[in-house]
Amino acid sequence: MNKSEPVYIESAMCPLPIRDRGHIILGHGSGGKLSGDLIANLFLPPFDNPALRAGDDAGVVEANYCTQLAVSTDSHVVWPLFFPGGDIGRLAVCGTVNDVAVMGATPQFLTAGFILEEGLEIGLLEKIVESMQAAAAEAGVQIVAGDTKVVERGKADGLYINTAGVGLMLPGTRISGSLAQPGDVVVLSGTIGDHGIAVLGARGELGFETDIQSDVAPLNHMIAAMLDVSDRIHVMRDPTRGGVASALNEIARQSQVGIVLHEQKIPVKTAVRAACEMLGFDPLYIANEGKLLVIVHPEDAEAVLDVIRQDRYGAEAAIIGEVKAEPNGRVLMKTAIGSTRIVDLLMGEMLPRIC
Amino acid sequence: MNKSEPVYIESAMCPLPIRDRGHIILGHGSGGKLSGDLIANLFLPPFDNPALRAGDDAGVVEANYCTQLAVSTDSHVVWPLFFPGGDIGRLAVCGTVNDVAVMGATPQFLTAGFILEEGLEIGLLEKIVESMQAAAAEAGVQIVAGDTKVVERGKADGLYINTAGVGLMLPGTRISGSLAQPGDVVVLSGTIGDHGIAVLGARGELGFETDIQSDVAPLNHMIAAMLDVSDRIHVMRDPTRGGVASALNEIARQSQVGIVLHEQKIPVKTAVRAACEMLGFDPLYIANEGKLLVIVHPEDAEAVLDVIRQDRYGAEAAIIGEVKAEPNGRVLMKTAIGSTRIVDLLMGEMLPRIC
Repeated sequence: MNKSEPVYIESAMCPLPIRDRGHIILGHGSGGKLSGDLIANLFLPPFDNPALRAGDDAGVVEANYCTQLAVSTDSHVVWPLFFPGGDIGRLAVCGTVNDVAVMGATPQFLTAGFILEEGLEIGLLEKIVESMQAAAAEAGVQIVAGDTKVVERGKADGLYINTAGVGLMLPGTRISGSLAQPGDVVVLSGTIGDHGIAVLGARGELGFETDIQSDVAPLNHMIAAMLDVSDRIHVMRDPTRGGVASALNEIARQSQVGIVLHEQKIPVKTAVRAACEMLGFDPLYIANEGKLLVIVHPEDAEAVLDVIRQDRYGAEAAIIGEVKAEPNGRVLMKTAIGSTRIVDLLMGEMLPRIC
Repeated sequence: MNKSEPVYIESAMCPLPIRDRGHIILGHGSGGKLSGDLIANLFLPPFDNPALRAGDDAGVVEANYCTQLAVSTDSHVVWPLFFPGGDIGRLAVCGTVNDVAVMGATPQFLTAGFILEEGLEIGLLEKIVESMQAAAAEAGVQIVAGDTKVVERGKADGLYINTAGVGLMLPGTRISGSLAQPGDVVVLSGTIGDHGIAVLGARGELGFETDIQSDVAPLNHMIAAMLDVSDRIHVMRDPTRGGVASALNEIARQSQVGIVLHEQKIPVKTAVRAACEMLGFDPLYIANEGKLLVIVHPEDAEAVLDVIRQDRYGAEAAIIGEVKAEPNGRVLMKTAIGSTRIVDLLMGEMLPRIC
């Protein structure tokens, strides 16, 4: 980042589009004219919707006599901000859309809180905001409230984004990590480890070239189609930080069941597998940002699998395991060579700032 | 902050309460065992509620056939983290509660996203979390979803907190910055500038001792009582960053009205006025975190004022001005010496990291 004093050209001085007016300065976080400039010229045009346009302290939205809501939040601190297949903006929208959708809710409204580092290029921020709107449009959600704070140079890392999401739920919807049943089937919507390896590649930490792309994507349309063919989906989860292994361990503990995986059925891209072997990682622990774990009644498994495979983000979906009564709270894997190993919770920190 | 490698004692090694186990390390943001430790032992006990306890990707909450929601978000980057009268935790809860309440909604559900700097003392984080829960209990809201990310030392400043809030609204509720009418009365719930000056004092930037406390407080109970006595409250706003001046300028523009203030009626603590004079600040532009601006039909003004004055946070409420048709979009002030001056939007940045 440019180390000299950040410059921002105010609109009264020059009719440049905001992306060409320089850098974020502390004044953009003041709540005064410069904040208003940023909101009116950078955030509002792409995000535009009635709730946001009203300019009040909160966005007011329709709730359609709703009986239940799903509410979620995620902060995004990924580095670098742009990586193959996505960026922090797309991540911020998709992550929260998915967290709401996996509860069986229809994600509709997002909030977006930006913490900007003094000196951030406004053109870069604009790209990220446009990416957020593209992801929101793809998912069919609106960003109805926002906030921007600015911290001094050195007190952030470019920018951090928090999103929160609200989804409306139909009465009687019950999908939770605590509802897995012995006999259920574990379905995975596609290849694992893509996002984590793509980010490592963007950091130059792989030590070799790769064309692995992050899988970051909104999965709510896939989920809606699944819920149309089965009302016996017990658990859904998007396996982000800590990977599939951490997500399944959490579910095993919440539901007090055992989960058995079959190593040869777990889809992993060749390049991801190669990268993991070189770095000493297990793909089961690497972050994904566009994958779904589904735990479903065995009689509905094939129908759900078919629906996922028809989705643009689910072509490589597979049944990867099953739920047992034992060992209670544990995840096991039957390996390619016929042995069985324990798949434990992630210890320590493998990949900081991955999402 | 301690510059040596941060240390965290895992629970298997020593049965210390979590507050005594050292510092935040990168592993606390991994999504694995250490993240689970933090959630189970630090966040869940104080925030405990069914939605959060379920441990799913989103919190599921009742919505009572609601027709409208108010949704808001705020990120909190105040420095220092603790200041006279409050801390970043109380601020994070009250700020979002108030942003939802000023729309005439009943705040009910909050989310909390934490961005922690590696090395942060866990005991300090615990104090902040307890403060959040105390504020939430006072306001009668629940924190139903959360997230924790950890960034490397030097990539944050202790911690940042984002909160988002959801409030349920009665049908037909319409309170907005765009609804001020000529003839309306402007009510202010108490003294201005307290929060900003208290934070400056905590930074040692005042150059003198003071006992000014931040006014940070949840105002939703005050607002509920007001709505009980009047259905002609047109606008409510909590004047945070940029102060009363910025909030009223926004309202004047949204409603396309003029607002005239009376300098002698605006309550300012003597110590705040003295601090502002020494530093060259105008209290009208200094942040507040527990004050309300109300724009109400003149016939209901006295009833609303009485109700505010009965609230613990509104003892010094006053009528400070009125709404006119002209000058359209501007705020004027009749000064103590009888002249009239323009009260413009805040230019530049007066007080960074104030909330």
